[in-house]
Amino acid sequence: MRAVESFVAGTWVAGSGGQPVHDAVTGEMIASVSSDGVDLGAAHAFARDIAGPALRGLTFHDRAAILRALGKALLTDTDELYVLSHSTGATRSDAAIDVDGGAGALLAYSGIGRRELPNHTVWVDGDVEKLSRDGSFLGQHIITPRHGVALQINAFNFPTWGMLEKFAPAFLAGVPSIVKPATPTAYVTEVVVRTIIDSGLLPEGSLQFVAGSVAGLIDLLDEQDTLSFTGSAATARVLRGHAAVLDRGVRFSAEADSLNAAVLAPAAGPDTDEFGLFVDEIVNEMTAKAGQKCTAVRRVIVPTRHAGAVEEALVERLRTVTVGDPSAPDTEMGALVGLGQRDDVRDAVDRVGGVRVFDTCEFVGVDPERGAFMAPTLLRATDAASSLAHVVEPFGPVATLMTYDTLDEAVDLVAKGRGSLVASVYGPDLGETAAMTIGIAPHHGRVHTIDASSAAASTGHGSPLPQLVHGGPGRAGGGEELGGLRSVLHYMQRTAVQGSPDLLTAVTGTWVDGAVRRDKGHPFTLYFDELEVGDCLDTGPRVITLDDIEHFAHFTGDLFYAHMDEEAARASPIFEGRVAHGYLVLSMAAGLFVWPDPGPVLANYGVDNLRFATPTYPGTEIRVIFTCKEKSLRAGAGYGEVRWDTKVVDQDGNVLASYDVLTMVAEKEPA
Amino acid sequence: MRAVESFVAGTWVAGSGGQPVHDAVTGEMIASVSSDGVDLGAAHAFARDIAGPALRGLTFHDRAAILRALGKALLTDTDELYVLSHSTGATRSDAAIDVDGGAGALLAYSGIGRRELPNHTVWVDGDVEKLSRDGSFLGQHIITPRHGVALQINAFNFPTWGMLEKFAPAFLAGVPSIVKPATPTAYVTEVVVRTIIDSGLLPEGSLQFVAGSVAGLIDLLDEQDTLSFTGSAATARVLRGHAAVLDRGVRFSAEADSLNAAVLAPAAGPDTDEFGLFVDEIVNEMTAKAGQKCTAVRRVIVPTRHAGAVEEALVERLRTVTVGDPSAPDTEMGALVGLGQRDDVRDAVDRVGGVRVFDTCEFVGVDPERGAFMAPTLLRATDAASSLAHVVEPFGPVATLMTYDTLDEAVDLVAKGRGSLVASVYGPDLGETAAMTIGIAPHHGRVHTIDASSAAASTGHGSPLPQLVHGGPGRAGGGEELGGLRSVLHYMQRTAVQGSPDLLTAVTGTWVDGAVRRDKGHPFTLYFDELEVGDCLDTGPRVITLDDIEHFAHFTGDLFYAHMDEEAARASPIFEGRVAHGYLVLSMAAGLFVWPDPGPVLANYGVDNLRFATPTYPGTEIRVIFTCKEKSLRAGAGYGEVRWDTKVVDQDGNVLASYDVLTMVAEKEPA
Repeated sequence: MRAVESFVAGTWVAGSGGQPVHDAVTGEMIASVSSDGVDLGAAHAFARDIAGPALRGLTFHDRAAILRALGKALLTDTDELYVLSHSTGATRSDAAIDVDGGAGALLAYSGIGRRELPNHTVWVDGDVEKLSRDGSFLGQHIITPRHGVALQINAFNFPTWGMLEKFAPAFLAGVPSIVKPATPTAYVTEVVVRTIIDSGLLPEGSLQFVAGSVAGLIDLLDEQDTLSFTGSAATARVLRGHAAVLDRGVRFSAEADSLNAAVLAPAAGPDTDEFGLFVDEIVNEMTAKAGQKCTAVRRVIVPTRHAGAVEEALVERLRTVTVGDPSAPDTEMGALVGLGQRDDVRDAVDRVGGVRVFDTCEFVGVDPERGAFMAPTLLRATDAASSLAHVVEPFGPVATLMTYDTLDEAVDLVAKGRGSLVASVYGPDLGETAAMTIGIAPHHGRVHTIDASSAAASTGHGSPLPQLVHGGPGRAGGGEELGGLRSVLHYMQRTAVQGSPDLLTAVTGTWVDGAVRRDKGHPFTLYFDELEVGDCLDTGPRVITLDDIEHFAHFTGDLFYAHMDEEAARASPIFEGRVAHGYLVLSMAAGLFVWPDPGPVLANYGVDNLRFATPTYPGTEIRVIFTCKEKSLRAGAGYGEVRWDTKVVDQDGNVLASYDVLTMVAEKEPA
Repeated sequence: MRAVESFVAGTWVAGSGGQPVHDAVTGEMIASVSSDGVDLGAAHAFARDIAGPALRGLTFHDRAAILRALGKALLTDTDELYVLSHSTGATRSDAAIDVDGGAGALLAYSGIGRRELPNHTVWVDGDVEKLSRDGSFLGQHIITPRHGVALQINAFNFPTWGMLEKFAPAFLAGVPSIVKPATPTAYVTEVVVRTIIDSGLLPEGSLQFVAGSVAGLIDLLDEQDTLSFTGSAATARVLRGHAAVLDRGVRFSAEADSLNAAVLAPAAGPDTDEFGLFVDEIVNEMTAKAGQKCTAVRRVIVPTRHAGAVEEALVERLRTVTVGDPSAPDTEMGALVGLGQRDDVRDAVDRVGGVRVFDTCEFVGVDPERGAFMAPTLLRATDAASSLAHVVEPFGPVATLMTYDTLDEAVDLVAKGRGSLVASVYGPDLGETAAMTIGIAPHHGRVHTIDASSAAASTGHGSPLPQLVHGGPGRAGGGEELGGLRSVLHYMQRTAVQGSPDLLTAVTGTWVDGAVRRDKGHPFTLYFDELEVGDCLDTGPRVITLDDIEHFAHFTGDLFYAHMDEEAARASPIFEGRVAHGYLVLSMAAGLFVWPDPGPVLANYGVDNLRFATPTYPGTEIRVIFTCKEKSLRAGAGYGEVRWDTKVVDQDGNVLASYDVLTMVAEKEPA
């Protein structure tokens, strides 16, 4: 029997004594878990004093690159984890969701970091706020890493994914993690952590691991720390009421019980594609991971007139499910994580009550009493509105059927879950499904609404995705995990900075209007490493004539009356006479600011936030003020992205058009 | 003596009995406050059943228009409120901050709603997430109003602003408010609420008012409700530990104690402008509202070598402050809100300890013992690191001086506040002030960093602004009020919706790629009211020739080598030969999609998110697929804004450029 070790302050160490962990399939004792004697204070100090400063010294892109390398490292050899996962009751397919899904979360957050964050340490949030008329006093929200630790307490069901989906956003944020796995599957998480640590990819202390109790660690947390929890609502409640949260301002987030619903829309009769898709999804949700998913469908809400058909179809499908040895290739449903868990689920089934529609099966190749096996169990509520299925969560292969007559009634039934992670809506009629989606949205973090056109590509009711929020209000814990950058923010602090344009530029690394500009020669002749934000070109002038407008109109075919017809233009509510095409102004502006010879600027790949502020009438003398606004190096690519603040102004300095020009600029000496 | 009435379920009603409220200046009993016998259950039900659905039926712009009208209504006659405010101890200038600032928050949120939100009921958050390769299954975050009540418990110090800065974002969100004023100044808030209700501008039940205890109301809140609190950390702790929050998932937000710091940077010696600006700001923060501001400077952190000069300058300025009758025009500092409050402040001063540098003054025209008057009080910490000024908040005209030697030491001292609403940094050296700003950012919701160039226009250390976050981590409560839309989100639920393109279009009102397109003739001939999202134009083709490129280059002056020189273009890492100008492609595209005759489309006022996906080589046949993506009516303007999804594709359907074209389109029958 192995003792699961903790990894603290750079050292692997086993706690003394330990809680026994049993194989879910055979009932054998296979590991022990304890943090007794593990120096939790050292873990906290190491994270805050050593890892935090090191992580904050890396840019978002540096951190993203590490996440990518880690994700790839985990995917190089997954077999050991698959095999180990069978002992938790997981089938091969369950294990793939956990292991490949976990590595996928690292890769996804790497991509999100590289695409959506700058290659800097400060994240600029939203626009500059002009706080004074003269522009000398501005505001800008910035987002910086909290100077604390992310203590992450995970659930037993996804020992790999559960850890990595919290670790990835914290790491990208620049905050070190201390991971506490659930005891029943801690031995799987330990192997993942060892692989990560052995890869040598992480800055020291950015990931620590404590198997066993972390009560002593929670006592050390303060307002710069974050505590994230996945598990039961009861434990979430204890943590939310802990002095760390109530007195010391620890930021707390939970992802807890969730009585997720799936709704069959009225128009989805037994003859529709959506009916069959719905039945398949329910069976899948009941059996995948033996129903031990926080997102699993617990409440099956169907129109009264289709209820008989749904029940019949579900029973027919459930009869064919192969339950048994998770390592056997044909097994569709393995074991629950342990005998205690099975007792809890059986007890919850009794409490939910209603009619037992289906609750037996054959167990293939296993002793169903030594292992934690259980038949898929379908219940029918005798009274939908008062069913305890809205309140009690059997965390296993269990769902309850209930019926509704009107759309409003269905919305009300769904809402009785008092906040869930996810709901599904199946139906062929967009009017019905869109109304249902909007009606139940305030009660959910995610709504999965499917018809025949989207079903084939759907990732499924039960799958949280890195891009989309995972979390829900109320009973579901009120947290927001994943959702791209939304969860990264959870580990950071948003701060409004007020000051002069130069101060904001110094703080954010982004040039803002009114800050110092520098003329170092044409900025298109400067390589990425030579360019500084604030480097500026003030071009010579060019007069836009009526001939130019005529010429441009016939050349491009844009004969809009406001350019062509003095009288008609005057009659419009906008213009005082013929006006230059906006695209003509843009094109002429490029003619003014471009540097013709080969040089560092490789291409102009886009334009953002173009606004034509004032019409440009014939005879206007335009010039362009062109300023390096933001630089973000594409490490290893030989170039960086440079954003230029671009203002086309007239002879009196009035802004005619403003926009950001986006360019790729070569490095002089690529690293 | 008047009984402050509550406004519940459409009726004004006085509670029985009541807590006495005294005039801050004379000590006379002037009002009583009680909610005994007020039907709090009716308030909750009325908000949820009547007001919520009505509010959710309005668009963001509808709600913004109401906020604007309300703000204007409040500003038409402020004299009564100014006079009443004197009884709370407020000077004319204190009252203006409260009253005009409160109305200003309504106007600001009106502007934010009209500018940053659509004229719709669903708020689309972030980009469409492509969840399948074929584009048939997508994700989109939406934000919808929670189906509950916003219970807002306010502090005594700003009876008008404090209420309105919470009400405005909740109303814009579409959530009804129940306001509980602090007892000592409830009689001022009552007048404001009467003005609002009497204006008849609000949908029934969207603002209710309960003077006195709301304990019974908190017992009714559940996971769709929001509880916002401003006041002491002790009360915030009680609320955060309430069963409503712990067990029932009520979303809780607090803005509590905050030991705000102001830091003088090392380079800001006595001969600098910043030194004088700093001293002025400290005196202002100590005396405005008699120091009863959650944002007031409590800790004055200065370089050891300038400490003597700072102390001397502060004392000199404090000597000149006129303290006394708040209704007298020369008075710079009025009274605390009451004798109990003064006792608390005196007690806190004793607990903070240190040296009393300044604590006496003459009280002009008042009896300083009958009224709650107190001298500005400057303390000096004997040991900065261990001072209780980091822990105890005297909520009155009190600040403590402390010293540092290095920048890091200053950052550490600031952090000892364990989370504050705001800190100020004053100094002439951007290197110092930017480093300090970033160093302390994780401990603050706002950092106000000033030098001589920004001081004149600064809105001041103590002023929360609607555009910027007001709130702070840790001791400051962990909330985020104001900050534009950031606080509106607090009253809403974010939900990831997954489904087909058509489903997302039906839910959001925004056309997404892959959804049904409709050809109803050229869409530029359709008026705003006739246009539907999905209306589409697929233009005829046009070949872009080398002649076109030559011609455009010489016409615009854009002779970038990649357009002009085959060999040089080939040598670049991007292009395979001479390539068309991006601006040429744009211009030709406009020539293809524009409708020349006068009609509903008034102007193309901008372009968003332009990306050149593939280079356009000579000989390419381009066409444009142009689709109505989003409509937002400018009510009363006679037109609406229409956003068009624009894709320039080649003969094989490859996307060359994609962007959004922004137009103003006239209504056929303006309302």
